[in-house]
Amino acid sequence: MSQPSPAGAETNDEIPEHRFSSSLSPEDFKALFRGHPGGVAVITADAGDGPVALTATSVASVSAEPPLLIFSISALSSASDVLSRAGTVVVHLLDANDIEVAELGAAHGVDRFAQTHRWSRLVTGEPVYSDVRAWVRCAVIDRMDAGTSTVIAAHALQSHIERDVQPGGAGDALVYHNRSWHQLGAHSRIEP
Amino acid sequence: MSQPSPAGAETNDEIPEHRFSSSLSPEDFKALFRGHPGGVAVITADAGDGPVALTATSVASVSAEPPLLIFSISALSSASDVLSRAGTVVVHLLDANDIEVAELGAAHGVDRFAQTHRWSRLVTGEPVYSDVRAWVRCAVIDRMDAGTSTVIAAHALQSHIERDVQPGGAGDALVYHNRSWHQLGAHSRIEP
Repeated sequence: MSQPSPAGAETNDEIPEHRFSSSLSPEDFKALFRGHPGGVAVITADAGDGPVALTATSVASVSAEPPLLIFSISALSSASDVLSRAGTVVVHLLDANDIEVAELGAAHGVDRFAQTHRWSRLVTGEPVYSDVRAWVRCAVIDRMDAGTSTVIAAHALQSHIERDVQPGGAGDALVYHNRSWHQLGAHSRIEP
Repeated sequence: MSQPSPAGAETNDEIPEHRFSSSLSPEDFKALFRGHPGGVAVITADAGDGPVALTATSVASVSAEPPLLIFSISALSSASDVLSRAGTVVVHLLDANDIEVAELGAAHGVDRFAQTHRWSRLVTGEPVYSDVRAWVRCAVIDRMDAGTSTVIAAHALQSHIERDVQPGGAGDALVYHNRSWHQLGAHSRIEP
């Protein structure tokens, strides 16, 4: 039998090591995804030391029953530390009327909660921006490390839809693509 | 010390249990995401028993260095079993010229590889559709269960861009939203 590790000894047991004979350069990888559009969300949380907010295009629904979604957070984000500890989050699903909130969650060096008329707190404590298309309060149920990012899986607990999309309609849907904002509608719809 | 478990004994240790006092209904959850647009990808793989393909709007870049992406697969998908075993996958990032491939990967009861002029195999064995905007071959590095779906993290190994987007341009970007296809361009672009 091996000796038990001395208290405080560091081991690499839990750090996955991946070695590949080829690996895409960061530049080539960015070029790929520059051409891949995404819906826009702002995620907020408060782990007890003040509210944080972050704009993300990685939010995706993974199952309706149970109601689960995922998103990823870069360790470089100012919200990363709080989101790694928060038990619940609010995911705001935005439309073109919400561009200012989307830009706020992506801005550097600004207080994303300075405009006190723009947000409030749910009775459960989470910060929520006002008048956005929709939001959903979620409990974080799992986390997976992926390089310098963390993928978070969350269970939807409570939602509010301010502006619903009608069957066959596009609403004022907002898309981020190649560093620009786009709005969907009859003008963008195509048939196969 | 506790007794070791008898061989073959089943425990629930690895099954995460989540109980919530409130949980969103499947209908309310679907209504939320109906209004959330997504870029369109087709994921292919072959774990040794024939090629599979699946259309997904959950593909997201999570880090450029290392080059990592994620996507989720429903256990209900016909490709789910193969994707749970495949060591590598090809993620095709589509534009509006690729709608037929996108519909193929979402069609029920059809052979998604019947049209032999539409696809080939990389020298490493993975099936790849021809003439799509871009594809990236990836090694699966981690999997996370989320309800009846699996979230897959993959490391990009090799890519091909057939149609690049120019700085400031929209290319022929394809978006799926509220069960319709949309094409981005100068007509959809908005300023804050």
